Amino acid sequence: MKLIYINLFLLLLTTSVMSQESILGFKPTTVTAQIQLEKEFDSKLSANNLDQWMKRMTAEPHYVGTEYGRKNAEWMMNQFKSWGFEAKIETYQVLFPYPKVRLLEMTAPGKYTASLKAESVEGDKYTAQGEALLPSYNAFSTDGDVEADLVFVNYGIPSDYEELEKLGISVEGKIVIAKYAGSWRGIKPKLAAEKGAIGCIIYSDPKDDGYYRGDVYPKGAFKNKTGVQRGSVMDMPTYPGDVLTPGYGATKNAKRLKWQEAPTITKIPVLPISYEDALPLLSALEGPVVPESWKGALPITYHIGPGPAKVHLKLEFQWDLKPAHNVIATMKGSDFPDQWVIRGNHHDAWVHGAADPISGMVALLEEARAVGELVKAGKRPKRTLIYCAWDAEEPGLIGSTEWVEDHKEELKSKTVAYINTDGSGRGFLNVGGSHSLQAMVMEIAKSVTDPQKNVSVYERRSAVDLMNGGDGDNKLYALGSGSDYTPFIQHAGIASLNLGYGGENSGGDYHTIYDTYLHYTRFKDPGFAYGVTLAQTAGRLSLRLANADVLPFEFKQWQNTVSTYLKEIIELTDKKREEVDKHNSMLDKDVFRLVADPQKPFTNPERKDAVPFLDFSPLQNAVSRLKAKTDQVSEISTDKLSAGQLAKINQSLFMSERILLREEGLPRRSWFKHQLYAPGFYTGYGVKTLPGVREAIEQDDWKEAQEQIEILAGTFKGFEQHLDKIIAAGKP
Amino acid sequence: MKLIYINLFLLLLTTSVMSQESILGFKPTTVTAQIQLEKEFDSKLSANNLDQWMKRMTAEPHYVGTEYGRKNAEWMMNQFKSWGFEAKIETYQVLFPYPKVRLLEMTAPGKYTASLKAESVEGDKYTAQGEALLPSYNAFSTDGDVEADLVFVNYGIPSDYEELEKLGISVEGKIVIAKYAGSWRGIKPKLAAEKGAIGCIIYSDPKDDGYYRGDVYPKGAFKNKTGVQRGSVMDMPTYPGDVLTPGYGATKNAKRLKWQEAPTITKIPVLPISYEDALPLLSALEGPVVPESWKGALPITYHIGPGPAKVHLKLEFQWDLKPAHNVIATMKGSDFPDQWVIRGNHHDAWVHGAADPISGMVALLEEARAVGELVKAGKRPKRTLIYCAWDAEEPGLIGSTEWVEDHKEELKSKTVAYINTDGSGRGFLNVGGSHSLQAMVMEIAKSVTDPQKNVSVYERRSAVDLMNGGDGDNKLYALGSGSDYTPFIQHAGIASLNLGYGGENSGGDYHTIYDTYLHYTRFKDPGFAYGVTLAQTAGRLSLRLANADVLPFEFKQWQNTVSTYLKEIIELTDKKREEVDKHNSMLDKDVFRLVADPQKPFTNPERKDAVPFLDFSPLQNAVSRLKAKTDQVSEISTDKLSAGQLAKINQSLFMSERILLREEGLPRRSWFKHQLYAPGFYTGYGVKTLPGVREAIEQDDWKEAQEQIEILAGTFKGFEQHLDKIIAAGKP
Repeated sequence: MKLIYINLFLLLLTTSVMSQESILGFKPTTVTAQIQLEKEFDSKLSANNLDQWMKRMTAEPHYVGTEYGRKNAEWMMNQFKSWGFEAKIETYQVLFPYPKVRLLEMTAPGKYTASLKAESVEGDKYTAQGEALLPSYNAFSTDGDVEADLVFVNYGIPSDYEELEKLGISVEGKIVIAKYAGSWRGIKPKLAAEKGAIGCIIYSDPKDDGYYRGDVYPKGAFKNKTGVQRGSVMDMPTYPGDVLTPGYGATKNAKRLKWQEAPTITKIPVLPISYEDALPLLSALEGPVVPESWKGALPITYHIGPGPAKVHLKLEFQWDLKPAHNVIATMKGSDFPDQWVIRGNHHDAWVHGAADPISGMVALLEEARAVGELVKAGKRPKRTLIYCAWDAEEPGLIGSTEWVEDHKEELKSKTVAYINTDGSGRGFLNVGGSHSLQAMVMEIAKSVTDPQKNVSVYERRSAVDLMNGGDGDNKLYALGSGSDYTPFIQHAGIASLNLGYGGENSGGDYHTIYDTYLHYTRFKDPGFAYGVTLAQTAGRLSLRLANADVLPFEFKQWQNTVSTYLKEIIELTDKKREEVDKHNSMLDKDVFRLVADPQKPFTNPERKDAVPFLDFSPLQNAVSRLKAKTDQVSEISTDKLSAGQLAKINQSLFMSERILLREEGLPRRSWFKHQLYAPGFYTGYGVKTLPGVREAIEQDDWKEAQEQIEILAGTFKGFEQHLDKIIAAGKP
Repeated sequence: MKLIYINLFLLLLTTSVMSQESILGFKPTTVTAQIQLEKEFDSKLSANNLDQWMKRMTAEPHYVGTEYGRKNAEWMMNQFKSWGFEAKIETYQVLFPYPKVRLLEMTAPGKYTASLKAESVEGDKYTAQGEALLPSYNAFSTDGDVEADLVFVNYGIPSDYEELEKLGISVEGKIVIAKYAGSWRGIKPKLAAEKGAIGCIIYSDPKDDGYYRGDVYPKGAFKNKTGVQRGSVMDMPTYPGDVLTPGYGATKNAKRLKWQEAPTITKIPVLPISYEDALPLLSALEGPVVPESWKGALPITYHIGPGPAKVHLKLEFQWDLKPAHNVIATMKGSDFPDQWVIRGNHHDAWVHGAADPISGMVALLEEARAVGELVKAGKRPKRTLIYCAWDAEEPGLIGSTEWVEDHKEELKSKTVAYINTDGSGRGFLNVGGSHSLQAMVMEIAKSVTDPQKNVSVYERRSAVDLMNGGDGDNKLYALGSGSDYTPFIQHAGIASLNLGYGGENSGGDYHTIYDTYLHYTRFKDPGFAYGVTLAQTAGRLSLRLANADVLPFEFKQWQNTVSTYLKEIIELTDKKREEVDKHNSMLDKDVFRLVADPQKPFTNPERKDAVPFLDFSPLQNAVSRLKAKTDQVSEISTDKLSAGQLAKINQSLFMSERILLREEGLPRRSWFKHQLYAPGFYTGYGVKTLPGVREAIEQDDWKEAQEQIEILAGTFKGFEQHLDKIIAAGKP
């Protein structure tokens, strides 16, 4: 068969029939057995297990370092063992700050002391566990004791500071208050500090996940007035994982930075609060009314300040090392034990974490249990399957990052792919990852049935795309950051996927005391139907990667995606040029001054430097050559190859993602080595594709942009040579 | 000179220099005198007069039928007389309902009785006039006593009912609660009644003009929690004016309908309330959460219902005739006394009406005073200028409509143009009207200086357009309804303009007890700088129309505008066809059902009938022929014409708007006779251009659309013949 053949065939026909007859990567002789295997796998999945296990794992708070977290890890290890896995706990010693002092008070014009305490709610006993509930704070905020006038900065992202500049408002020496959402939270204090602020408060506006969205807990799923989102503000776009051991495992005797020197701890103190605590502060602000798009849903007129509201923020943390317990469960492959398919989900939570992360964790466990049963029935996977339950994801992807850093060389030589899940619920399939895996993922999506609509999850997702004006052709999103795939793909160059279901599971429980078993089973996935669907989907991914005759990597869709990204950055540059030209032309015509209301603050904007024309031809040529090569790869008739040739090709296929790394990493953040995908330096989770070039363009650094174009073209050249090896190996 | 020549010349050059040398419609021999006249006119305008007169006219509430309204009319009449005008009061006897019983209470699930009372505020004595303040109500609501479950219908416009239909929610037998804004208020009860509702409540959501927009009165300009917008809900899109005398003047002895038979009184009772009174009702609703775009700024989750909130609404009105006093002040023209330029603004207000309408009224008065002074200095206008202060505009354009109906034939034979103003304030020039006057208006806009920015008001308005991505080329908007130009243009076919300044004068005072002198002078136009600018602008319009050698009607821009409208309705039809095709194709693919959340109400939409192709060629050919004719008109060398020829051409020019009438009027509303412009049957104020065709298309009435195409082509044919007359008269 040809690598590309089945895939195209599948895209053209409905799969309900076809999936019975062909699967990407399987020979006609092995397809039937694999289909049979997947049927058996499905038949072993039990929603009841998910329910019972979630109830057990979320009975008490289990953030890193807790006794209950350790118990969960041990319980899972024993479960894995009982299912026939070799299982162990790998523990790292990681810095985890615990809040000792949290004080936020308004000192002028009136007095107000923030309660910083979420109310327990009737009917949910988990919210009434008192001292056991982790106090609300932002992990890796620095210690601090500051007092200053307050400034409201909307979401506290770059475009908000541009808006403030237009109004002539500086945050220098001030404390900012920003809304949650709009970016990963860690960007807010990072940017505020860069702009000279001395403290940062983050609150959840009811517009984003409170009463504006829907009824609040316990009547509905959304955030009530006292709910507070916890979360890490570690500078993960620089490097994730233990702040004291950048780039290597936080083993017991590892060399460590002093915490005061760790570059990924914030420069200014940061505290998250509820909208009940934010209301008196925001109400006391004067100054200009905020721009339209900044307005939240509190019943006030939002003003920017600065002041007259003045606040005092005092934070102190216990800076201790805590043990992070990763559970690693291995099912050795029958034919290729040194080819690893790794499947992971984290098990630590900020509080009970029913949705985040236990909804994904229990699906992974059930998937592993079913695999164990298949093995007991003599159906051992050809490649090795490794199931992982990560600790300390919440404070900064710490458990997975330390493990990847600690085992980097072995992982790079043996790992076929990493498949991640995290919180999941009712709704539509969301899946992102390495685009060489797109064909396989979409093939699988066509073979999994949506539990509510009785069509494939592909078809249901496609319907949303059609509704939104798209062509209904589902694609993988590109991975930025935000869960444990990051060290695998961004640092080690291991092809990765991240998947979950959602869209009908919204709420305001994220990282609050309200993310409980009772909340989850009422609002997120009653009956765990989608939990089972997730196990089916991820299970197929694992089993196909484990058993494929030819690993289901496909490069035509990959190349097509890359050429789309290239087109985007060229258009981005053109668009910036047009915007600058338009801006300067409007300045010439005095438009800004003429439109401005003289009774409101106004600063006539500066003239901008013209955007130069970049030489994109090295990339255009490289991507064009890749097209020719990926066409050739797709023409390889794998059916006719010898076992030796197949082995060689498979080896090259799964090593292909590694070729997209650059050892020097991205500018100013060498930990991030992938040249196609990275979290944005100023978005935090949000992906930047072709990040070296794209971020240089976004930051108007034209010299670096041109350099990065050359570097990326070099990476593509290497990929071309890698494809040449596959083509050569595939010659009859 | 050629009709078109100067205008094009002006568009090409900045007018600060050019306006000294040429004006559209003036011969080289008369230009200098006119420019000198306008300079003198400007020099006579005093902001202090505007201030004093506003204070006087808004000292007490002066809605139709009040003693203070009568006093204002008499005072104005005497002012006009003192300035040398022949002035009189023309009084009509018009039906004006006064609220006797206003009861709104929630009867389930809890009890709440609406206070229906706006609070007086500290620092504004006018808001503390107690019983004198007209109670908040909607004029021309019918009497009623109803009790039913409540349904929230957003703005209560057609698209909202489509949304309700998708959710399977009917308002049959229910009482609806709608937000103000989104349409003219009268559409809300009209549509609710058509959908089977038995009562209608309208409230002002703080998102639209309350704290969401800015600080509330008295701290800021926006609506506080007790403010209520009064207003008429008469079915004005059917006919405006006295409900008992459709199409003829409401003179003392006119034949009258019984009020119970009047077709423009609502079918169901309607009451406006504050957001303080709305909050308990909206909070008590259950059922689906509203769609995203429906959400307001109250601190609640908005639900649709129906129920469990149940309300009891009881309304009774005193249905009495009241005298409406129009002040008519005439300054006879020296050369053409039977050619009238009419200038109007209403003087009645819901309460004090500082902004609406006195801000425009005092500008008109000052304009008239300056004209009087010019006349005293021997500079009498060539044509007759008539200044009008209308009564009873607020309940339904009643004063102006009755006057136009009463004097229709004389007005149609003598009136050159009608120039309307109404509420006005700080900001940008907004001007709409007959597009044959566009060239003149924009020429004038280039000669009036913005008091804040020291550029022309044209240039400032142009800057906004550039900021919004436009080409900076200012155009007249088309007139729908909402002020006293309606009877002139829509019914009598008199070329009309409506102008004002705004955009930096926003607030929540409209039709509330807070629209006072103190509110206006703090927030709307401190120092009356824009009041003077309005007088300058409208004064130039009046004086140029009065003195022009050749009336400044220009048809090339008119034809260009008409061809734009034609393009719009063709595109509208194509767009509807595409939407229907897309809708049906999505139904074929089962997209709606697949996307729908099964835990939320959902009704799979119906298949829609395909949109046929209409034959637009009669209109395309007619508009194309008009292009040729308007080109010919613009080539007439008016300098070389005899006085007799000029007189003939002037007569044809000002009669041209009449040719756009059709005596039979629009389908189902014969009062509206203009074929280019009408208020939308389901928008109320918002204009529909080429209304016969456009509304038939919007309502999917393809047969009527084709008929209206033929009818409109006939109107254009008549216009073509009219232009032929001008061309013939212009032959040397």
